[in-house]
Amino acid sequence: MQQKRTLLSYCPTVKVVDATIRDGGLCNDFRFSDEFIKELYQANVAAGVDYMEFGYKADRDIFDETKFGKWKFCKDDDIRAIVGDNQTELKIACMADVGRCNYKRDFIPKSESPIDLYRIATYINTIPAAIAMAEHANKLGYETTVNIMAISNAKERDISSALELLGQSCVDGIYIVDSYGSIYPEDLRRLAEKYVEVGQKYEKYIGIHAHNNQQLAFANTIESIPLGVDYLDATMSGMGRGAGNCAMELLLGFLKNPKYSIAPVLRFIEKYMDPLKQDGIKWGFSVPYALTGLLNRHPSSAIDFTKEDREDYENFYHELLEKF
Amino acid sequence: MQQKRTLLSYCPTVKVVDATIRDGGLCNDFRFSDEFIKELYQANVAAGVDYMEFGYKADRDIFDETKFGKWKFCKDDDIRAIVGDNQTELKIACMADVGRCNYKRDFIPKSESPIDLYRIATYINTIPAAIAMAEHANKLGYETTVNIMAISNAKERDISSALELLGQSCVDGIYIVDSYGSIYPEDLRRLAEKYVEVGQKYEKYIGIHAHNNQQLAFANTIESIPLGVDYLDATMSGMGRGAGNCAMELLLGFLKNPKYSIAPVLRFIEKYMDPLKQDGIKWGFSVPYALTGLLNRHPSSAIDFTKEDREDYENFYHELLEKF
Repeated sequence: MQQKRTLLSYCPTVKVVDATIRDGGLCNDFRFSDEFIKELYQANVAAGVDYMEFGYKADRDIFDETKFGKWKFCKDDDIRAIVGDNQTELKIACMADVGRCNYKRDFIPKSESPIDLYRIATYINTIPAAIAMAEHANKLGYETTVNIMAISNAKERDISSALELLGQSCVDGIYIVDSYGSIYPEDLRRLAEKYVEVGQKYEKYIGIHAHNNQQLAFANTIESIPLGVDYLDATMSGMGRGAGNCAMELLLGFLKNPKYSIAPVLRFIEKYMDPLKQDGIKWGFSVPYALTGLLNRHPSSAIDFTKEDREDYENFYHELLEKF
Repeated sequence: MQQKRTLLSYCPTVKVVDATIRDGGLCNDFRFSDEFIKELYQANVAAGVDYMEFGYKADRDIFDETKFGKWKFCKDDDIRAIVGDNQTELKIACMADVGRCNYKRDFIPKSESPIDLYRIATYINTIPAAIAMAEHANKLGYETTVNIMAISNAKERDISSALELLGQSCVDGIYIVDSYGSIYPEDLRRLAEKYVEVGQKYEKYIGIHAHNNQQLAFANTIESIPLGVDYLDATMSGMGRGAGNCAMELLLGFLKNPKYSIAPVLRFIEKYMDPLKQDGIKWGFSVPYALTGLLNRHPSSAIDFTKEDREDYENFYHELLEKF
């Protein structure tokens, strides 16, 4: 249950999840230097961040290892090389996509792995497959969440039945994912109430992963807290696919739990995130992402627009409307 | 009174105010080309925007006319040169700062002026002076608002007595102004309820002017609508001092009144706003603005930080804390 909270107090159950490598990796094919990852880990530990997501556990039979940095595959040994035995309060997370992960081969027993939490990403039509993955991970000893993506395109009735299935499963947490950055705070509060109701009934925590297409990622994230959403995703400088995510620097500035500290994040940004931008890695709010968010579309066409250095926003808008 | 509204319907009382020249002028000392201003006017007309603010009516005895573009002074003839007799639905607004405007000399009778609305900007300690200006403008035939700036630093009791004074005055509207970009949606809703209560009692409309220091300008603006806030400030590409304002492209995308059209705004942005950015005019969200917003400070130190091309965010944060 939620404790009473004001803007000056805090919910002790709130946890911050750094998703910089995982969602940010979608901007640079996961090609981060080892130094970057090590320093990010140290920054998260120093900032009091609760979880750090190292990337995807992608199936090496589906994706060519030579075409991506190692954090698309998140081998346990690669994580171990960064965190050692991870003698810190920070927990290690890894995302696994339904249908793109050979979990039976690649998940090893928790006792042998530096990973604490597997986050299973799914669309709403593959919930049973997500639950099968979560159950496998659960039996191996991991904490698990199921993150239902592209929720803005799902029917309310389907969301309800998905939540009911997840409530009755072994998962520890369920995530609201605004993949398209199209959810307004008014919608978000309704969704959060729905998720939290199921979460309270079945003792699952609820998380939120927001995208910034309409400059609402931070707003939606903080608006969900008083409703009982506890797991908050954020990334350094908001780095993430397309318009990016809720910025860690905003979220840690807002949260009042004294365990959090913004200074290590600021230091990391000036030393590691600004140089990524200067190197030409692109993410963050811009007009094309606003338009796909507004029209509740996948950001892929806006990502292409941006890659092609196009600036004809009006044409792009009409193109989107034609493809309705 | 508010009509019932959902995310798919709209409040017919809602008005959009384009403040690009006025707040954006703070980024380039009001040096816009005549072509820019003419095209902005046409874009606003085509987009169904309700008001366009042309700049400040600054006192030429206080500010050197050679050091600023003409829109800091907004001579009636300069506006007339752009809008002619303004045979459109778009109304013309102009801002006048308490203590920095010779309103007795510079406000001419409404019947001789293209200006429709004077927006009087004041801090909370000069409300009586703002009311004197508004009364003068009112007698000359203008619509007036009083915009109480830096409200995040004002005491609740002072806000209440300011609103009571304004309620009893001749002003047509009262504005919530988040000058420091430090107001969270939760605060904003409380403030909006307070303003709207006075507005309903005294038949004044309520407006909002938000800043984007914490990426909350759009969120705060749209959150205020269901509470009865009717006048919504926005700027093209969010151009405005420091972190800038609520972006017109986001706001018109959100509003459901069929009178609004986003395409002319997109066209204007690609043709006129992107080039301003490419010319080196700076505005928009960045870490230093997030920090002044978070700490509820005037953005001036962050503006200096940005002008000096500094990137040492952590030092800047500690500097801000020392000056508490």
